[in-house]
Amino acid sequence: MFTKPTLILDEAKCRENIEFMANKAKRFGIDYRPHFKTHQSREVGQWFKDYGVTKIAVSSVPMAQYFAADGWDDITIAFPFVKQQADTLNGMAGSIHLNLVASSLKNAEDIVSAIIRKVNVLIEIDAGQGRTGLQPYDLESIDSIIKLLDQSEQTEFTGFLTHAGHSYGVSARDLMELNNQTISRLLPLKERYSNAIISYGDTPTSTICEQFLGIDELRPGNNVFFDMQQASNGICSTEQIAVGLACPVVACYPERNLVAIWGGAVHLSKDFFIDANGNKSFGAICKLNSDGSWGQPIDGLTLESISQEHGMVRATSQDLLQLISEDDFLIVLPAHSCLTVDNMGAFWVNGKGSLSTMVNGEKSS
Amino acid sequence: MFTKPTLILDEAKCRENIEFMANKAKRFGIDYRPHFKTHQSREVGQWFKDYGVTKIAVSSVPMAQYFAADGWDDITIAFPFVKQQADTLNGMAGSIHLNLVASSLKNAEDIVSAIIRKVNVLIEIDAGQGRTGLQPYDLESIDSIIKLLDQSEQTEFTGFLTHAGHSYGVSARDLMELNNQTISRLLPLKERYSNAIISYGDTPTSTICEQFLGIDELRPGNNVFFDMQQASNGICSTEQIAVGLACPVVACYPERNLVAIWGGAVHLSKDFFIDANGNKSFGAICKLNSDGSWGQPIDGLTLESISQEHGMVRATSQDLLQLISEDDFLIVLPAHSCLTVDNMGAFWVNGKGSLSTMVNGEKSS
Repeated sequence: MFTKPTLILDEAKCRENIEFMANKAKRFGIDYRPHFKTHQSREVGQWFKDYGVTKIAVSSVPMAQYFAADGWDDITIAFPFVKQQADTLNGMAGSIHLNLVASSLKNAEDIVSAIIRKVNVLIEIDAGQGRTGLQPYDLESIDSIIKLLDQSEQTEFTGFLTHAGHSYGVSARDLMELNNQTISRLLPLKERYSNAIISYGDTPTSTICEQFLGIDELRPGNNVFFDMQQASNGICSTEQIAVGLACPVVACYPERNLVAIWGGAVHLSKDFFIDANGNKSFGAICKLNSDGSWGQPIDGLTLESISQEHGMVRATSQDLLQLISEDDFLIVLPAHSCLTVDNMGAFWVNGKGSLSTMVNGEKSS
Repeated sequence: MFTKPTLILDEAKCRENIEFMANKAKRFGIDYRPHFKTHQSREVGQWFKDYGVTKIAVSSVPMAQYFAADGWDDITIAFPFVKQQADTLNGMAGSIHLNLVASSLKNAEDIVSAIIRKVNVLIEIDAGQGRTGLQPYDLESIDSIIKLLDQSEQTEFTGFLTHAGHSYGVSARDLMELNNQTISRLLPLKERYSNAIISYGDTPTSTICEQFLGIDELRPGNNVFFDMQQASNGICSTEQIAVGLACPVVACYPERNLVAIWGGAVHLSKDFFIDANGNKSFGAICKLNSDGSWGQPIDGLTLESISQEHGMVRATSQDLLQLISEDDFLIVLPAHSCLTVDNMGAFWVNGKGSLSTMVNGEKSS
């Protein structure tokens, strides 16, 4: 069916993942603004429209351009303002609702000085991850930014944006507390700046938690596909994972309990998860069916190491290797689907063939 | 100068790295067959011709096609034979000297049954890494493969290929022993099969070692650019690293000793090295000069974490952050240049502008 490593996208699973989040947001009366960095695909983006999605988030200016060109007209660039991209942003701001992010006072100054068309600005708050954003108690800087934005005719302060990225290493049962802590850091801002919205929502908290007091929009991305990092933390089941990398088996070494596949770091990236047996694994291994679907991960098979093009699958017993021959393809459920999709640049979808992402071009190496 | 993360290639450093290896191979009377998987670039490939290189290695069939189309006519695909690529290989075998690799008995059977034009075949030996290849003492299988290849008119057995990939985590001072051990595993094969060549040579052993008894060709790849993994193991100096990712500084947090850059896992991949202070780092941080060159890594700055687009630089003191402003670009010397190059898909070269690799297209996300 395939001749090289090919990223298969299961459309039905993907649509169920989208629908779940769209329904959940609706149930809470919250806007669903999905983050499109995970799929980076025009076609997959269109699927969201079937579930009422009209607003999106992206992680870069080129990604905003790509989706704006496909008709999306309310886009949040959920990344600190990049001054060197001002010309492109000014071009887009004239034709769509563009929501920029100020992650520092200097960011806000740069927006005010470089942006010459109407944009909305969200202030990024670091609500616990320790990555980008102002501290929620730094009211002096927040006040300064809002004052600055109010003084300009082009920039409208609309609210606060946060990413609770520290949720990624956390198991499902500890997520409730992390979610409550994170939101409690944001609520004083909501009280002080009464018209400000709060944009929130990584995949773990958006998927698992049931408490979103004061939150106006949810912005998860990874949940469109999920992956083994999410599954191993109990955020999703392995059945919900919507992408699998089909890899040719290239050599079997039953005497060493090893199988080599064509599928390495240039396809999967180097992220990993810890499997149920406590082993570090770069992906879960499944059998590929003739229609492009796949079975459940095979217990006892670990993608133990990857180099540029090689993947080495370790079996806990020789019996397991009876299941595999050098004529097979195996499916690898990625440890981190966002990076695998970015690496591969295209999906194969049953009935639709190959769909390119904005990275533009199936990885052929 | 740039508007987004841009991979700069220092041509002079790169040429020095090529020249060093070409001269070393000449001094030992060994063929230099550089592995082109690191640069994946037609233009960089042409630079090797200035140092007498006429034979190359690649890591996939599409990569062989790419370089064959640019005139390279002696190509070793240093990866187990992929049966699903037989049609493409048969197309190429008619017009160039194609050297395939049998990494198992089944691989050899597949070559004999699927390849209909003249090819050379090397048998891959696992000389200590524990990845692909036959065990050097498995003479029964090796004899069977050679017999099989001899029976076919299309396949000519030419020798053995090994990759001592276990050299990558080893410091320079322990490399001599590893190199001697590896070669000593191969020498009995050289005695038993007297006309067989031995193709050898990862970057660490090729660069550092001075003993290549019985070795006929060296096949390093990474040394064309080097990287911080190699530098931190003492294989190269940081001055020899020929690629640096120019990243816009997007937000400074002096109160947290942190700087955010636009440069993340989609640009650098997720490999890391351990710096001189024992910290895990995804790259070394340097200042960018106005001509596209860069200074030495700044001691006390660590690329502590990367997510999809963000890189977070940690400083050991606030003083160091005085050196950096949000208008700057910083240079990240990659932990693993092969994966960074694969991710980026293009180089910027002073005086030449942007050169695309076979991955075809600068990453714009």
